[in-house]
Amino acid sequence: MITGKNYIGNRLSALGNKTYRTFNPKLNIENEHTFIEASQDEIDEAAALAAEAFKTFRTISGDRKATFLRAIADGILDLGDALIDTYCSETGLPKGRAEGERGRTVFQLRTFADLVEEGSWVEASIDTALPDRTPMPKPDLRKMSIPIGPIVVFGASNFPLAYSTAGGDTAAALAAGCPVIVKSHPMHAGTGELVASAVVKAAKDTGMPNGVFSNLNSSGIEVGQQLVQHPEVKGVGFTGSIRGGRALYDLAAQRDEPIPVFAEMGSINPVVLLPRGLKKDKDKWAATYANSITLGTGQFCTNPGLLLGIKGDDLDEFVQKLADEIIKIEPSCMLHPNIVGAYEKNKSKALEQPALSVVADYDGGVAENHARQALTTVDGASFLNNPTLHQEVFGPFSMVVQCKDVKELETVISKLEGQLTGTLIATDDEVKEHRSLMEALQNRVGRIIFNGVPTGVEVCPSMTHGGPYPASTDSRFTAVGIHSIKRWVRPFSFQDWPNGLLPDELKNENPLGIGRLVNGEWTHAKIR
Amino acid sequence: MITGKNYIGNRLSALGNKTYRTFNPKLNIENEHTFIEASQDEIDEAAALAAEAFKTFRTISGDRKATFLRAIADGILDLGDALIDTYCSETGLPKGRAEGERGRTVFQLRTFADLVEEGSWVEASIDTALPDRTPMPKPDLRKMSIPIGPIVVFGASNFPLAYSTAGGDTAAALAAGCPVIVKSHPMHAGTGELVASAVVKAAKDTGMPNGVFSNLNSSGIEVGQQLVQHPEVKGVGFTGSIRGGRALYDLAAQRDEPIPVFAEMGSINPVVLLPRGLKKDKDKWAATYANSITLGTGQFCTNPGLLLGIKGDDLDEFVQKLADEIIKIEPSCMLHPNIVGAYEKNKSKALEQPALSVVADYDGGVAENHARQALTTVDGASFLNNPTLHQEVFGPFSMVVQCKDVKELETVISKLEGQLTGTLIATDDEVKEHRSLMEALQNRVGRIIFNGVPTGVEVCPSMTHGGPYPASTDSRFTAVGIHSIKRWVRPFSFQDWPNGLLPDELKNENPLGIGRLVNGEWTHAKIR
Repeated sequence: MITGKNYIGNRLSALGNKTYRTFNPKLNIENEHTFIEASQDEIDEAAALAAEAFKTFRTISGDRKATFLRAIADGILDLGDALIDTYCSETGLPKGRAEGERGRTVFQLRTFADLVEEGSWVEASIDTALPDRTPMPKPDLRKMSIPIGPIVVFGASNFPLAYSTAGGDTAAALAAGCPVIVKSHPMHAGTGELVASAVVKAAKDTGMPNGVFSNLNSSGIEVGQQLVQHPEVKGVGFTGSIRGGRALYDLAAQRDEPIPVFAEMGSINPVVLLPRGLKKDKDKWAATYANSITLGTGQFCTNPGLLLGIKGDDLDEFVQKLADEIIKIEPSCMLHPNIVGAYEKNKSKALEQPALSVVADYDGGVAENHARQALTTVDGASFLNNPTLHQEVFGPFSMVVQCKDVKELETVISKLEGQLTGTLIATDDEVKEHRSLMEALQNRVGRIIFNGVPTGVEVCPSMTHGGPYPASTDSRFTAVGIHSIKRWVRPFSFQDWPNGLLPDELKNENPLGIGRLVNGEWTHAKIR
Repeated sequence: MITGKNYIGNRLSALGNKTYRTFNPKLNIENEHTFIEASQDEIDEAAALAAEAFKTFRTISGDRKATFLRAIADGILDLGDALIDTYCSETGLPKGRAEGERGRTVFQLRTFADLVEEGSWVEASIDTALPDRTPMPKPDLRKMSIPIGPIVVFGASNFPLAYSTAGGDTAAALAAGCPVIVKSHPMHAGTGELVASAVVKAAKDTGMPNGVFSNLNSSGIEVGQQLVQHPEVKGVGFTGSIRGGRALYDLAAQRDEPIPVFAEMGSINPVVLLPRGLKKDKDKWAATYANSITLGTGQFCTNPGLLLGIKGDDLDEFVQKLADEIIKIEPSCMLHPNIVGAYEKNKSKALEQPALSVVADYDGGVAENHARQALTTVDGASFLNNPTLHQEVFGPFSMVVQCKDVKELETVISKLEGQLTGTLIATDDEVKEHRSLMEALQNRVGRIIFNGVPTGVEVCPSMTHGGPYPASTDSRFTAVGIHSIKRWVRPFSFQDWPNGLLPDELKNENPLGIGRLVNGEWTHAKIR
């Protein structure tokens, strides 16, 4: 049941004066529930509870954390159609997408449960003492990852489940042993509250400390700002725009005690079309990219907004086919009138650039809040000279840069801002021939795809979802996959600690049976 | 031979107008060589060369990087007494310390050589494709760590070798595949140039690209500021004061493209004395701590500046013994007149606090630039209410906080800023009895020592040298040990990449024979 209230730890609370509603973009009407924005007192209380909960939660066993995470996953499924219906009414996205994203969210929670239950993720490292070493004895040193403290997670507009309330950031933080305070996204506050109710129920049912999770409503930027500046908050997870992410990063960096912000932000996900690779499968790539560009109304962070090719008949032919395919696709609904508005505005701004040619611009009638897809072209020199063209147009919009030769193509790549992904359409031989172009592309992105599309972020250990700024605020971490837990932990060493007083992960007898680096060797063995 | 010039890549250069000399604090005279500060043009050239060198250095094999690192180590040893003499003349430290630090520096370089030669450090992770998975095929994903780009390393005043020119930050960055630009520390520019000459010679001899290493002289803060703001610089390593480290952190955070700064800064390294542990070995701990507090004239970052105990006869007796031991120690020379000056000033500022009682203050005559050690006491309530007393007095100064009970002791601990280390003098039973105090202490530090001293930072995989702010700017990394390489790398994923075109680390046949996570299992095996 949606109450419109905040969860301050396990308690529903609504002390604030500011209220708002979510919006159904498909029906173009406000949804029924009224949400009450968290007050300063509620923010303080959630932070104090999180700090108190951290004292015990930070050392709760992997088994117990796994039970908690699995209970959240089960609870989300138990919400049934109420969750799916709320999701659809707050996003305009179809039921299949809602169910798919729910499946991914549950999978992520269960994956982290498996990870902490197994236990090796703490990267235990043990160097035993050498008391007879000269000139100085070597002490016994044992290291493992420990949680950094309460984390604030910002819900993402475009993924109400997988990147929001109990999404990847939250699952990773809880798995690490960090309490979580969610800054609920105003566009899907109802979805958020339902998921939050499942997390709170799971926390209670599995005996987690009160305050391990809170969910705060917000209609503007104030609640998020206050949370990031709160002294009890020790880290921030964010998925959204460059402007939003950078603002939070700046606030966190200006604190007396700066804290890490992992913000996954904008990306135009360049696709490099090398001539022979393109020539081989023009029709296939045209159809595939028409779908990738318009998938989810272009609202994926890995949407291919930029195609880079070499001028010539093959590229012209491909562009024409792609235009034909794109124009055939039925426009779909965006998440919110504000997002459609921003899309139309940014698209217009791009189309105003004299160097840009429009090759496809859907001009049929569309329902309210539906986005008209567009495909444009520009020559390499103009692209290089016009920073406006480097900016993301969030939505089903793509630009083909027609470079005069491989050298210009490489220059274009090296001048791009950091990106989540780079894709290469090429033959094997072309990759071998253009080594420096490959290096340049790798240097700008977090993930490189060969003869495919960037949309679709597989949740697995080998995924990197991140990249050089502004794809993320810290390229040294990933937002997806088990290693995303590293954002919320720090190494900690015990020196000459009595064996019986060490955490289980570091005891000689290795009671958890985890993999450890012992005197430089990776092993599951005990220490005699 | 010392020329006083900068190394811009492999070339000696001296275009600037600003000159300075280093100082021999023992003789209280300037040293003979004149150093020419790097000009803006030289900074730009070093950065451009580093960016160019990165294009090839980033993919040079582990074997070749190992050869380079070992050549640096050999070259440093080949400098022989010229290096040791210069070191001593620029620091006032004794020859034994110089040789010990050289040994550590060489050990660090060789340790990183072994690490990259073996190769598993890249944390390779492979998830093979499942083309038949429904509803979507699973792509092939392969991830490994790659270098982030040119790194600026700031030399540390207190460790001219181990934390400076070719110290831990440089060794880790070069091992990662990142070119390094050193901002030489003005107090030991001659030592820096000699070591730089060994690095440049090693780079040439082993065929590394020009620009993989530069060494820039500086007398003030401008060269460092310009480097941190330079667009081609992608990361910063710093060891020094909170003021200096924070200033660089702020500059880096304010860039258009923010970059990571790992600054290891101040720490007062609290030592918690629990009653029964203290009672057992009062004499031993008094002698041990008198030595630890005055070791290297208190100029170690892990110097124990704060002892926390419970009021009572045992603590009083220990304090008296410690005072007796400390006063016996012969004062020694500090690194530079400025450092002695800062020590005397900060000590006076502390001694002016009315709540502070002096129990030992060396008042014998001392030679120029020698520091008079001091020991003081204060009650817990006064310490809690006076932030001045929480500040580091860099040098042989320590304060004993006499808490009225365990509860107040825990409050004191929880109010401390972040620290590199925390030490516990206790019996096993006391650790078990005071679990929440242990948690509080762990939460403030990067390393916890049982019945020992914090001075002495063992270089091994299980060491954490870092901690919550302001011990470091990012507690998620360590400055010492092989895992310090993680500061300079980022995860990178290849999706559906042809096996033959992958880096060796990710190929099916595992030609390097490294340990990898393959479909969730850690293995050295090939993939069939």
